[in-house]
Amino acid sequence: MSELRWDPVKRHWVIIAADRGRRPHDFMTVEAPTPMTSCPFCYGNEDKAPHEIFAIRPSGPPNAPNWQVRVIPNKYPVLRVEGEVRSRGYGLYDVMNGIGAHEIIIETPEHAKGMAEFSVAEITNVLKAYRVRILDLRKDLRLRYMVLFKNHGVRAGATLSHSHSQLIAVPLVPPVTVTELQVCREFFQQKDRCIYCDIIDFELRAGERIVKECAQFVLLAPYASCLPFELRLFPKRHCHDFALLEDDELEELARAMKDMLLRQKEVLKDPSYNFILHTAPSLQPRPGKHDFWSSIEYDYHWHIELVPRITPIAGFEWGTGFHINPTPPEEAAAFLRDAAG
Amino acid sequence: MSELRWDPVKRHWVIIAADRGRRPHDFMTVEAPTPMTSCPFCYGNEDKAPHEIFAIRPSGPPNAPNWQVRVIPNKYPVLRVEGEVRSRGYGLYDVMNGIGAHEIIIETPEHAKGMAEFSVAEITNVLKAYRVRILDLRKDLRLRYMVLFKNHGVRAGATLSHSHSQLIAVPLVPPVTVTELQVCREFFQQKDRCIYCDIIDFELRAGERIVKECAQFVLLAPYASCLPFELRLFPKRHCHDFALLEDDELEELARAMKDMLLRQKEVLKDPSYNFILHTAPSLQPRPGKHDFWSSIEYDYHWHIELVPRITPIAGFEWGTGFHINPTPPEEAAAFLRDAAG
Repeated sequence: MSELRWDPVKRHWVIIAADRGRRPHDFMTVEAPTPMTSCPFCYGNEDKAPHEIFAIRPSGPPNAPNWQVRVIPNKYPVLRVEGEVRSRGYGLYDVMNGIGAHEIIIETPEHAKGMAEFSVAEITNVLKAYRVRILDLRKDLRLRYMVLFKNHGVRAGATLSHSHSQLIAVPLVPPVTVTELQVCREFFQQKDRCIYCDIIDFELRAGERIVKECAQFVLLAPYASCLPFELRLFPKRHCHDFALLEDDELEELARAMKDMLLRQKEVLKDPSYNFILHTAPSLQPRPGKHDFWSSIEYDYHWHIELVPRITPIAGFEWGTGFHINPTPPEEAAAFLRDAAG
Repeated sequence: MSELRWDPVKRHWVIIAADRGRRPHDFMTVEAPTPMTSCPFCYGNEDKAPHEIFAIRPSGPPNAPNWQVRVIPNKYPVLRVEGEVRSRGYGLYDVMNGIGAHEIIIETPEHAKGMAEFSVAEITNVLKAYRVRILDLRKDLRLRYMVLFKNHGVRAGATLSHSHSQLIAVPLVPPVTVTELQVCREFFQQKDRCIYCDIIDFELRAGERIVKECAQFVLLAPYASCLPFELRLFPKRHCHDFALLEDDELEELARAMKDMLLRQKEVLKDPSYNFILHTAPSLQPRPGKHDFWSSIEYDYHWHIELVPRITPIAGFEWGTGFHINPTPPEEAAAFLRDAAG
């Protein structure tokens, strides 16, 4: 069973995923791309992976080919669904048992196809799977936040090359998210406006960090980008929750994501990358904490963060939380604006 | 000129190091180890590097061979010493000009020798250079904190393979350091004890995360380690400031560091790694903020953090600040305890 451990000095939680049992020699080999015949995410190998939780499939039985998108539990989950959330003190530390969920969204049956090459309809299906799984996991009152992310390429942490994303549901709201939600809430309480709506408005007027604007979305390089060529994709319409999007909005989002991934691929020559969905947390009432997120639909503005992983995170960044970015976002935006998309 | 930019939502500063001017194609090549003839850190190539700021050299003129340790300004500094610290608002953001210092400590004239293979006397010389440079830079009232760190290996962010460390003096205390200092201060104010002294005491009693204890130092795997095989090296004697160490204490520290690096090298087969010195900030009075660190010598406990870089920082970690560590620190400590050292 995994554990969540609290560092009282650095003030962070860490998941100690003991079930994965990584010993020194496990770290020695750099993983090569999985050969096609043994890939557990390919058609015909459904029996090599856990039973599916959800799939988009025109016809046919579950756990067999003919699916378009398929969601399975991670075979080596960092958190497990069985049990109750319990925490206790241990010396100056805190420890919580590793309750949660860890799912894999297999985005395509095609082994070698990256998301930038998907059709808009294919990306739309992936987004529909995200929405279904987030809404379903929110019914579990133990789970406080759903982290939806993608690791593409070895430098971004992908261990299987077949295109997939992951959903980890965690029993507490992660620290980066807490800070973001608190800032958004304070801003709304002071000004009756969403801070992200203000940022989008400011950036559209400034122009120099805008990569692409379409009817419903805006893609920009953040003013204080930590990593070179970092991007954020915002819906122009204020909305706190990705999971509330209608099918036609998901299709527009898919179109904007494809444009974003194609620009990145062209300018950076198919880099490793991560994207992370930033959306509202689960909103179930909790004893003693029932009203903390009561204004979330006004405070927060969902968006997607995309980070190409072309520079390592070195000692300065690791030790201080202070990033050095050698490419000004204005220059990154100019390169990406000029790309084909 | 570099800029420091503030993200009001994520609440962090970023250094936009524009002078480095990294364009997309600069990220395409993975840097190969520098061939020996052209390495600017080798004997005889002193004219390929900026003039030295400090050196340990038994005899002979500056900027010529015969040195043991040599400190030079970084040829491509992320921050520069010229000018005054000025900050201003820009929309919802803040921006500060990039004042600071960026120095390279060339740790040895031998191109291919890693710090784990240095003699204790050689490491002691490196530590003496750290002490000299930190004390000197603290005289500059614009500089609020000195970040002393080492990147070893490509995965840890090293771009030159000749063994060196870096010192970046920054015009504000970095966020990880601020959190750490605040926690230490609150703990001392509540309990009249140093939180790190309590942690060391607790860990020595628990035993299972201790790698090595000697007369003056203790090496342990932190309870809430973010990365596999992460280590911290603490002086047992309470002291807030590395720069106050006497020569004989530096020699003991050098011995403990060599032991630490040899254990890591044996167990993880010479991994990429970073280490970061955590020490007290500069203490010059500042208008309106004069007493914030007034109890620092009681609050804080200097130490060294060592992180092997054997796993990438993936999307979950990047997006949430929440780390997944597949190796429990108790197991990491057992492997390292059994190594030769």
